[in-house]
Amino acid sequence: MTISKYDLRKAYSRVRPFVFKTPVVSSSYLDAQYEAQFFIKSEQFQPIGAFKIRGAANFTQILSDAELKKGLVTHSSGNHAQAVAFMAYKLGIKASVVMPDNSNKVKIANAKKWGAEVILCEPIIEARLAVSNRIARETSATIVPPFDHEWIIEGQATAAMELIADVPDLDYIIAPLGGGGLLSGTALAAHYFSPKTVVIGAEPENASDGFEGFKTGIRVSSFKPNTIADGLRTTVGEIPFEYIKKLVSDIWLAPEDLIAKSMFEYWQQTKHIIEPSCAVPMAAFHSKRDLLKGKKVGIIITGGNVDFTSLPSL
Amino acid sequence: MTISKYDLRKAYSRVRPFVFKTPVVSSSYLDAQYEAQFFIKSEQFQPIGAFKIRGAANFTQILSDAELKKGLVTHSSGNHAQAVAFMAYKLGIKASVVMPDNSNKVKIANAKKWGAEVILCEPIIEARLAVSNRIARETSATIVPPFDHEWIIEGQATAAMELIADVPDLDYIIAPLGGGGLLSGTALAAHYFSPKTVVIGAEPENASDGFEGFKTGIRVSSFKPNTIADGLRTTVGEIPFEYIKKLVSDIWLAPEDLIAKSMFEYWQQTKHIIEPSCAVPMAAFHSKRDLLKGKKVGIIITGGNVDFTSLPSL
Repeated sequence: MTISKYDLRKAYSRVRPFVFKTPVVSSSYLDAQYEAQFFIKSEQFQPIGAFKIRGAANFTQILSDAELKKGLVTHSSGNHAQAVAFMAYKLGIKASVVMPDNSNKVKIANAKKWGAEVILCEPIIEARLAVSNRIARETSATIVPPFDHEWIIEGQATAAMELIADVPDLDYIIAPLGGGGLLSGTALAAHYFSPKTVVIGAEPENASDGFEGFKTGIRVSSFKPNTIADGLRTTVGEIPFEYIKKLVSDIWLAPEDLIAKSMFEYWQQTKHIIEPSCAVPMAAFHSKRDLLKGKKVGIIITGGNVDFTSLPSL
Repeated sequence: MTISKYDLRKAYSRVRPFVFKTPVVSSSYLDAQYEAQFFIKSEQFQPIGAFKIRGAANFTQILSDAELKKGLVTHSSGNHAQAVAFMAYKLGIKASVVMPDNSNKVKIANAKKWGAEVILCEPIIEARLAVSNRIARETSATIVPPFDHEWIIEGQATAAMELIADVPDLDYIIAPLGGGGLLSGTALAAHYFSPKTVVIGAEPENASDGFEGFKTGIRVSSFKPNTIADGLRTTVGEIPFEYIKKLVSDIWLAPEDLIAKSMFEYWQQTKHIIEPSCAVPMAAFHSKRDLLKGKKVGIIITGGNVDFTSLPSL
């Protein structure tokens, strides 16, 4: 295990000046529905409306001043782009973000709001990599990877660290699985700070590369996802995959039709906005009632950046 | 002035066991946009998702046990119906709620959720009154009026009482104006507990009966509103009108096209869901920047019961 308990503690002190300690909320309707106690870490209330600020803060705070001066570059379909743009704004440096041209409009607008240069490209990973590598080569800017890097994983771990500090005896923590930065960080946080807590990943049935890899032990490196959970359309990265294999207990799949339904129900009941990706854990544990009954269950809500002009229909 | 400072204090102790002391939140985007400081009383976080629980709690707590046993009846297009249903549920008595057949589906479902009998009627005030009067006659149930009653006004006043207790030196409080229960209660609360605070009502341009009456001094008793702010389609009641004339400083009108826009912007920025009615103050003070600059401005968010299957388009 390369990332140590000490690394996570250092990451927490690095990110602390840039992130909100978001609230852990309860939900009487979920509690009643599952006869369980839910503790919902609400990262949609971060300054950029998503947890991704944590990884970007940790990564950039490790860079030297000389490196920072040359600027940042990243590729992302959304919240990570905003996170890098936000950090560049806070640090007074330049950021270029490469975004697929089919990205959520709100996420594009938000990256621009923080002063980043947004470069749109074809919505395939090869195009994203090619464009961001070219910019890095031409400007000597540092590439901030969206998930496949230990500094990013350490940063994302800080959400679960705060959740565990608030609720020390959780039976489960359930986090969505996209590129795996959050889930691997969450698993590391539980491993070091709450070892009895079972960590579960939740993935859309229609973007089940992580589930397949987890079951076979061999990472799926290419996959064509088809889900409304726009934050989870990436395949799991190499580094996160290794931590997930070791530390995560299971991956639960969310039926596509339950994702929008669970999202709107959460909106209706709590008056809090969450992204489709955040509803993936709820849609996934819909069929796990027996496992959750009587348990203390942590959920990580990853963000609330919804494009209201193109909502899924019910 | 029939309602005294002492009446409001008594109302507060009556409603306290049934309502949440909802949070007063700030908003960096509104503050930056207006160079003002906003204090947003967030009544969408009440158990029924709206402030109306306050009036219903005060009203039913004044009734005798013998009266309560005969049940409650009311007519409402929405949140008041839920409030009466909720109070009946809490008190273990029967409630019949007469709702126009074009009511927001979520509000109908919620009234049923609390065990009320829902009777749908034609969406005109005459039908609502006729049906609820008939039920009251037949069952001896007590009619709980939605706004035109001093006990209801006292109850609704408690939202502003809490806001004033949290933020004692507000320059403005802005509340939406529908039937006038909330606005008259808010004005009374400011009159007794924060007399320097200027109270403003906000009304949709397309439901401007309150504005017309306020300007001429003669209540408009019949009006055909055409606004997405479904909570504000009623005309101002007789009793609220008298308090509003005396205690409210002005009524500001919200252009219809800004209501949905302000609502979605609030969702996007805060991740909190508000109803179209709650966006009416924001849409109304859009053209009042000069008045608000540098001021401490309280806003009352009335509820968050949105039908996501029929959202307004932008």
